[in-house]
Amino acid sequence: MDLFRLVDLFGVSVFAVSGALKAREKRLDPVGFVTLGVVTATGGGVLRDAILGRVPPFVFQDSWILGVAIAVSLAAFFVRLPAKGLEYFDAVGLGFYTATGALLAADKGLPSVPALLVGVTAACGGGVLREVLVNDLPFVFRGTLYATASIAGATALLVARKFGAPDALALGLGFAVTTCIRILAIRKQLSLPTPVD
Amino acid sequence: MDLFRLVDLFGVSVFAVSGALKAREKRLDPVGFVTLGVVTATGGGVLRDAILGRVPPFVFQDSWILGVAIAVSLAAFFVRLPAKGLEYFDAVGLGFYTATGALLAADKGLPSVPALLVGVTAACGGGVLREVLVNDLPFVFRGTLYATASIAGATALLVARKFGAPDALALGLGFAVTTCIRILAIRKQLSLPTPVD
Amino acid sequence: MDLFRLVDLFGVSVFAVSGALKAREKRLDPVGFVTLGVVTATGGGVLRDAILGRVPPFVFQDSWILGVAIAVSLAAFFVRLPAKGLEYFDAVGLGFYTATGALLAADKGLPSVPALLVGVTAACGGGVLREVLVNDLPFVFRGTLYATASIAGATALLVARKFGAPDALALGLGFAVTTCIRILAIRKQLSLPTPVD
Repeated sequence: MDLFRLVDLFGVSVFAVSGALKAREKRLDPVGFVTLGVVTATGGGVLRDAILGRVPPFVFQDSWILGVAIAVSLAAFFVRLPAKGLEYFDAVGLGFYTATGALLAADKGLPSVPALLVGVTAACGGGVLREVLVNDLPFVFRGTLYATASIAGATALLVARKFGAPDALALGLGFAVTTCIRILAIRKQLSLPTPVD
Repeated sequence: MDLFRLVDLFGVSVFAVSGALKAREKRLDPVGFVTLGVVTATGGGVLRDAILGRVPPFVFQDSWILGVAIAVSLAAFFVRLPAKGLEYFDAVGLGFYTATGALLAADKGLPSVPALLVGVTAACGGGVLREVLVNDLPFVFRGTLYATASIAGATALLVARKFGAPDALALGLGFAVTTCIRILAIRKQLSLPTPVD
Repeated sequence: MDLFRLVDLFGVSVFAVSGALKAREKRLDPVGFVTLGVVTATGGGVLRDAILGRVPPFVFQDSWILGVAIAVSLAAFFVRLPAKGLEYFDAVGLGFYTATGALLAADKGLPSVPALLVGVTAACGGGVLREVLVNDLPFVFRGTLYATASIAGATALLVARKFGAPDALALGLGFAVTTCIRILAIRKQLSLPTPVD
């Protein structure tokens, strides 16, 4: 099992926990925990694959990804997981899915702005679906530079690629920019302004 | 018109009524009735087909399915349908879409856990979309073994298939397990626990 | 740049503004403005393309469409756009997406009722997603003949096509019927009834 796959399973686990925490907040039953966990963990990637015509989407080709998402969500029903530190782990998942999503889209030949959107959708889509399912206002609309970090990272990746950077470098840059901005925003509580008046 | 198709149209009608009842609860106009009726009746199957790459999804290839869903939803606007007994009919639809969804996915070569998820999505997806559209918390997150019955039925079907059962037998088993558990849960008011604390 | 494309970009801009106005109502940050603007402007077309198997969906093949939607949404964050008159422009977009969506579906060989649904989804889907994302009850369920105008226009187009009308005529008819009914409904405040009792 290579590093790439390990990071993928790590990201899925972290996102699944964030879905399960929302389920706890709403006092759902175990099916609700698993639904929110799986949707949060895999929703962004499913949207990405649907956009790019990768059918069936990745989670439906691999019992491991789904199995891990289900197991983690169920565990979070029985054990109260510590939420502390979760958002730092989440920042790693955000960077990973931003970079891989944008690179996949660019490799498929999509123009830059659409490829950017695919990366951001892959990274933020699961979280948006989580909130939509339980009728909360999506976190990304008011979060501390969550989607913004993803936008910046995808932009960095696509610019680097434009200038001929090899895939591994572009990927690393997209990941690093996203994750660093997001962690900085958490620590300094940075956020975007809301409209005046 | 064979038995299979009759059950399909029956399931579509029942699910359409449950969408229309939600529209009545929210006091929507006839367009709202039809939208909720059609989404509830066909949403799960559309998600299933999108996952499996069956394009266009079944409802878009067949004026009958859509026509029945629209007609039933409209009728439910003009006539106050009796809700009593509806959940028993709904249990039949739940079993039918669980079994056909899981079998279709397994036939496409999907691994077991993903095939299970496809069956559950086909059966429960329409109901989730219905609630999401009108901002209610999805019923499956707190219902009386609704998604749980679907999970059990899809599991039974996939295990039977693994042991070499012919399709008709596996299908019947998946249907029976889902529908029986759900009916039992309605009669005995069984439900899953919510998290302690 | 031909007339068709100009109308398309015009429709995208108008729908993006209606998304941004919703973002202002909810006091979102610029990322929220762009998300709602882009989803409203392109969501219907993405659903249409997903149904018809056009992958990747149009907005992902064209930096212009997305770029305009993003730019308009951002502009609406910084400048308070006048809402007055917007619904008239919106009626033009509604007609355009209804007609092009229904024609595309019919050209793909879909039967009439499904083709009708594709046209209505293309025209109204973005607005429904906008409301779902911020947990409002979708406007089309209670609006002044919004989806209804789209249904009427798509029906007119499909009937004309059935009777052998050339594409340009059918398209013009679908557009005109949708837009005229919608404008009439705005001016006369027409709406459908809600269920008695």
